[in-house]
Amino acid sequence: MTLTWLAEPGNRTVWSLVQRDGAVATLTRLLRGDLPDGGLRAGVLAKAATLDPRRLADLTLRRAERLGARIVVPSDEEWPARVESLATLSLDAPRQVDRDVRPPLCFWVRGPWPLGEALERSVAVVGARAASGYGTHVTTEIAYGLAAHGWTVVSGGAYGIDSAAHRAAMAAGGRTVAVLACGVDRPYPVGNSAMFEQIAESGLLISEWPPGSEPLKHRFLIRNRVIAAATAGTVLVEAAARSGAIQTMGRVLALRRPAMVVPGPVTSAMSVGCHELLRERPDATLVTGLAQVLETVGRIGEYPADPPRGPEHRRDALDDESALLLEAVPRRGTATPEELAAKAGLDLRTVLRRLSLLELTGLVERRGDGVTLARKR
Amino acid sequence: MTLTWLAEPGNRTVWSLVQRDGAVATLTRLLRGDLPDGGLRAGVLAKAATLDPRRLADLTLRRAERLGARIVVPSDEEWPARVESLATLSLDAPRQVDRDVRPPLCFWVRGPWPLGEALERSVAVVGARAASGYGTHVTTEIAYGLAAHGWTVVSGGAYGIDSAAHRAAMAAGGRTVAVLACGVDRPYPVGNSAMFEQIAESGLLISEWPPGSEPLKHRFLIRNRVIAAATAGTVLVEAAARSGAIQTMGRVLALRRPAMVVPGPVTSAMSVGCHELLRERPDATLVTGLAQVLETVGRIGEYPADPPRGPEHRRDALDDESALLLEAVPRRGTATPEELAAKAGLDLRTVLRRLSLLELTGLVERRGDGVTLARKR
Repeated sequence: MTLTWLAEPGNRTVWSLVQRDGAVATLTRLLRGDLPDGGLRAGVLAKAATLDPRRLADLTLRRAERLGARIVVPSDEEWPARVESLATLSLDAPRQVDRDVRPPLCFWVRGPWPLGEALERSVAVVGARAASGYGTHVTTEIAYGLAAHGWTVVSGGAYGIDSAAHRAAMAAGGRTVAVLACGVDRPYPVGNSAMFEQIAESGLLISEWPPGSEPLKHRFLIRNRVIAAATAGTVLVEAAARSGAIQTMGRVLALRRPAMVVPGPVTSAMSVGCHELLRERPDATLVTGLAQVLETVGRIGEYPADPPRGPEHRRDALDDESALLLEAVPRRGTATPEELAAKAGLDLRTVLRRLSLLELTGLVERRGDGVTLARKR
Repeated sequence: MTLTWLAEPGNRTVWSLVQRDGAVATLTRLLRGDLPDGGLRAGVLAKAATLDPRRLADLTLRRAERLGARIVVPSDEEWPARVESLATLSLDAPRQVDRDVRPPLCFWVRGPWPLGEALERSVAVVGARAASGYGTHVTTEIAYGLAAHGWTVVSGGAYGIDSAAHRAAMAAGGRTVAVLACGVDRPYPVGNSAMFEQIAESGLLISEWPPGSEPLKHRFLIRNRVIAAATAGTVLVEAAARSGAIQTMGRVLALRRPAMVVPGPVTSAMSVGCHELLRERPDATLVTGLAQVLETVGRIGEYPADPPRGPEHRRDALDDESALLLEAVPRRGTATPEELAAKAGLDLRTVLRRLSLLELTGLVERRGDGVTLARKR
């Protein structure tokens, strides 16, 4: 708890020290200023100077208790194992937010479900804050369906796609988890307060930052790695160029999890980021709806794919050659197989084989040496 | 001319005989019924029985003369060399329309341009007949732009996407080629007659079938291989599941030409085929507009790509770390670099480097030991 207050979650140095020496020894060391990284040391000491860490711990625990929030650490049974995949994530990036992607040290949790269980079968649905009606509609379809199929819908609680995903999951009577970039006592944005209260009752509000923490801009980038790592796959519905959701998808791809992208009109600025991702990342998967999301994240054979089809009527069920042949059969009078072969551009053997089929399905009738179209019943 | 009347263009046997023995010897052989393929023999003899081939030739030539149509054969200077790529195309398919994809034997042509020259720098733009307003709009943007950049727009003359492509190219004062599946004297559909007349004046109407030939259904599938083979690349704008345009794209991919696909709303039946192609064929390229089409078909460096960007203002030009830092700088009062490092979650070295940059761009101001946001001018 104190470590995530002193240094941002995901920090490579702090996480490594905790792995080696444990949290208490690491905290003692941090407060002594005994750190190899000068920037981190300065940040920690500046923070510790603003408030006594012991007092911070007291305040935080009291605040959490009033709120009914609990803290979950890696040794707890409800710890979500999947986030540990961040331990070996290599982004090889020069930017600090890309370098510091280690696993969380703890989660603050509000809500009735064991965290690990809620995230076990979960899919993230993320996207633009300034979502279009199209994006909101598609999000609702996918998130509602995921929840109806027993999947937990994970998102970031923001306006637009995130809210649509949370709301649709709850409307389906399902579970949803909002991963916050601030304290679970002050979920951001404030305009979604009623939704957050509903999530805290029927799903989970979770955060790596202690209650009272502000939603600083860089924290969303840090938070995104949790959305990517805690779920079985992530669906991006709408994203402008260079948006935060694109960064989340970068994490998903780096973790080799399914990165599912919904395309949209090329005329919509809200789909520019989606299309760019599909162009630049061959490992991203284009999905057009719930069925393809389920097919992607489900166990093999769990959701058999239904290939998209044209309009359904009897003629459409025909293979191309039979369709060509049927086209050549006269409505009035009859035609011989040889005439049909010439007209349809097929060889005689094919024509004879296909004619038997068409006769069986009742689409053509034999009359003497020739065939004619069957009358409609 | 007579060969394409006796047997459908693209036929593997006829094309091979012409390559080996020439057209005249092949015609003599066909009329003698001396053919290995029984289906082909039956078709040819049935056709020859309906009309004397010599008389057909007379009739056709007179009809063509009245129309101002000419015939172009491989030995002509204006023969479009690119279609010969079909000679080695292997589709390994059990269906006859997929097996018979050999190059054309001739083209009937109406219009003022040498055929080969018109197709040299050409792009096909194809798609659904039942196009949506979205599809028509995107087609118009792309085809107009291609024509304005000096590219010939090739399509199939159908309603919907095809018509929008032809019309936009002409509106831009450019060249367009309609590849027909029937005689150039009776372009199909009749509802597009005025457009076809305009194309015959400013571009080209072309067909492998002699004047007088009917637009039989199977001929569109045969025709599609020419659209794929004659152009530098093909753009698919809208397509329902299992549509003819998807078959064209199969040919394009088999020829290893750029197969460019425009995505659309996943809620639109007219984009189902496009999305399916993008999911199933990793060699298909998602394109969102003219710039990406030009980038794909142009010579390397001819059309430098302009990466899509978010809204343009000074803050958006910043890298992520500078943006985080700027976020942490107080609007009132000042903050020290150490305080900023703690608040922005960055190390001190990064903060000092980025602060110099922000100061240079005039976004922050130094005041004593700290910095503050610059006043808006």
